[in-house]
Amino acid sequence: MTSPVASRQVSLADLEPLCARAVRAAGGSPEMAATLATATVGAERRGKSAVGAAHLVDYLDALRDGRLHGGARPRVERPRAAAVRVDADRGTAQLAYDHGAGHLVEAARHCGVAVLSMHSAFPAGELAFYASRTAQQGLVALVCGNSPALMAAYGSRQAVTGTNPLAFALPHSSGPRVFDQASSATAWVRVREAAQRGEPIPPGWGLGPDGEPTTDASAALAGALLPFGGAKGANIAMMIEMLATMSGGTFSLDAAPFDSGSTSPSLGLFIAAIDPTAFDPRYEERIEEHLTRLAAEHGVDVGRRKAPLTEIDLPEDLYQRLAAV
Amino acid sequence: MTSPVASRQVSLADLEPLCARAVRAAGGSPEMAATLATATVGAERRGKSAVGAAHLVDYLDALRDGRLHGGARPRVERPRAAAVRVDADRGTAQLAYDHGAGHLVEAARHCGVAVLSMHSAFPAGELAFYASRTAQQGLVALVCGNSPALMAAYGSRQAVTGTNPLAFALPHSSGPRVFDQASSATAWVRVREAAQRGEPIPPGWGLGPDGEPTTDASAALAGALLPFGGAKGANIAMMIEMLATMSGGTFSLDAAPFDSGSTSPSLGLFIAAIDPTAFDPRYEERIEEHLTRLAAEHGVDVGRRKAPLTEIDLPEDLYQRLAAV
Repeated sequence: MTSPVASRQVSLADLEPLCARAVRAAGGSPEMAATLATATVGAERRGKSAVGAAHLVDYLDALRDGRLHGGARPRVERPRAAAVRVDADRGTAQLAYDHGAGHLVEAARHCGVAVLSMHSAFPAGELAFYASRTAQQGLVALVCGNSPALMAAYGSRQAVTGTNPLAFALPHSSGPRVFDQASSATAWVRVREAAQRGEPIPPGWGLGPDGEPTTDASAALAGALLPFGGAKGANIAMMIEMLATMSGGTFSLDAAPFDSGSTSPSLGLFIAAIDPTAFDPRYEERIEEHLTRLAAEHGVDVGRRKAPLTEIDLPEDLYQRLAAV
Repeated sequence: MTSPVASRQVSLADLEPLCARAVRAAGGSPEMAATLATATVGAERRGKSAVGAAHLVDYLDALRDGRLHGGARPRVERPRAAAVRVDADRGTAQLAYDHGAGHLVEAARHCGVAVLSMHSAFPAGELAFYASRTAQQGLVALVCGNSPALMAAYGSRQAVTGTNPLAFALPHSSGPRVFDQASSATAWVRVREAAQRGEPIPPGWGLGPDGEPTTDASAALAGALLPFGGAKGANIAMMIEMLATMSGGTFSLDAAPFDSGSTSPSLGLFIAAIDPTAFDPRYEERIEEHLTRLAAEHGVDVGRRKAPLTEIDLPEDLYQRLAAV
């Protein structure tokens, strides 16, 4: 699909300082700006534009309205040898991760496995950010985040949980192999796009405000999304929520909205990091051989590493918003 | 559905020694017999008859043919503070878990999280067995097992992974809340049942031997099952396989069959146990309040604890098989 919207080519090398300046101008600390710009560009590099520059605007709005704390100073505790607890101080999860990641990696190597549990965070954005960075240290990473309630489950007629994403990453000599997926049948942004275009959505994506199945995108936005894979997907979403809220993150049903108001959604994030060499020094080698075989013999490319993008087509209005410092 | 097959009522109190005797008679050690009988009765108690007494026959056949080692002596190592590595010695995963569980629980409490990684095991049966026992110790449990390749994924035309189950359990004052699900759209046993009755299966459950979608149950048994939830379910299945094989368990594609031959499938099992009190002393209380609210206000019963069964209707031929000692 081509868009009639005016746009301009922007290199990712130029996008990063553009994003960082925009965050600082909106009230984010230099440290928050740097890590959020890195995360934004990382998502664009992986081709995930929905959680890239377009999503940065949600952070800018939230900084302006006060539901994202620009001066957040994350606090890290290490209550047990393999337990890292991070208070994001109503700031970004990316900044809080940066503060806790050193502890997480050290603990995982020392103990064989470690968990970083975060609370009081803004929605975590692209989970591949956390999973990839953890896997770059030679660790297997499982990341679960919850989000404000937007999704029905198990036949409920209203939203009871978030679109709770899950990411998994394997260390690999050519760079981490990662997947990152929402627990909803489709991403919320795709439903919003369909509503903006006035197009219907397929059956199974959403319920209307009356709790009945709908193919009307606007009705689904006012109602609830549905999980992927029925009750099995709902189980995954609930598992994610119960892990993500471990250190006190707010349950999806209670979380303040991420796109309005001045209250922090105060969500949780769960990162398990496993050092596979604790269990088998040959793990990474075995996995690489297996992935190579799956691709060569069956055309199956698990956590495929697409060629990273180096420049993107940025809508002009979005460019102007970021550049309006 | 009622079955015309002759059957008899058997109390679970009577079923347990019946199962244990059958395992011992087939060559299982007294220790293996005791833990397998406990697991079998536990599955029946939870209403999971497909992994109960009917599945015990698979173990008896495997003991007779030598692909399950009746005299297995599991070996437990503790390579790091939070890492427990268990060699199941080609025996049952249940017996190997019994040997490693004390280390897992102690390590999780001490470090905040621990992982038990098992290799060289027979297929693990009902994963709720491991998840529930771990959660009974006040720990949050995530259990992943792989199984011989029976499932296509990501558009492959042949099986590339197992029906890889996942279980998750939360500690709860009224007993663990647990879910336990295969990564296939439906359980393999349901396809086998449809084939035996000559009934079709719904679209989306399987591929024929030609790699094309089929609604013929027999063709799907000869071909491959399909994952739940498309590529997202396939991602879950692959994550399970990569976790389950961490200490050297055989990849699904390489595993010997569980129902023929004399070679051990030598599969893996992954159990992560997290002590939530390391992160928040109020975790269990918060979760219970949330689950109560979800049930009361939305009719959502996560990991519902059904009334446990105390007796079952056992097919007469199955009873005779177990009693033929």
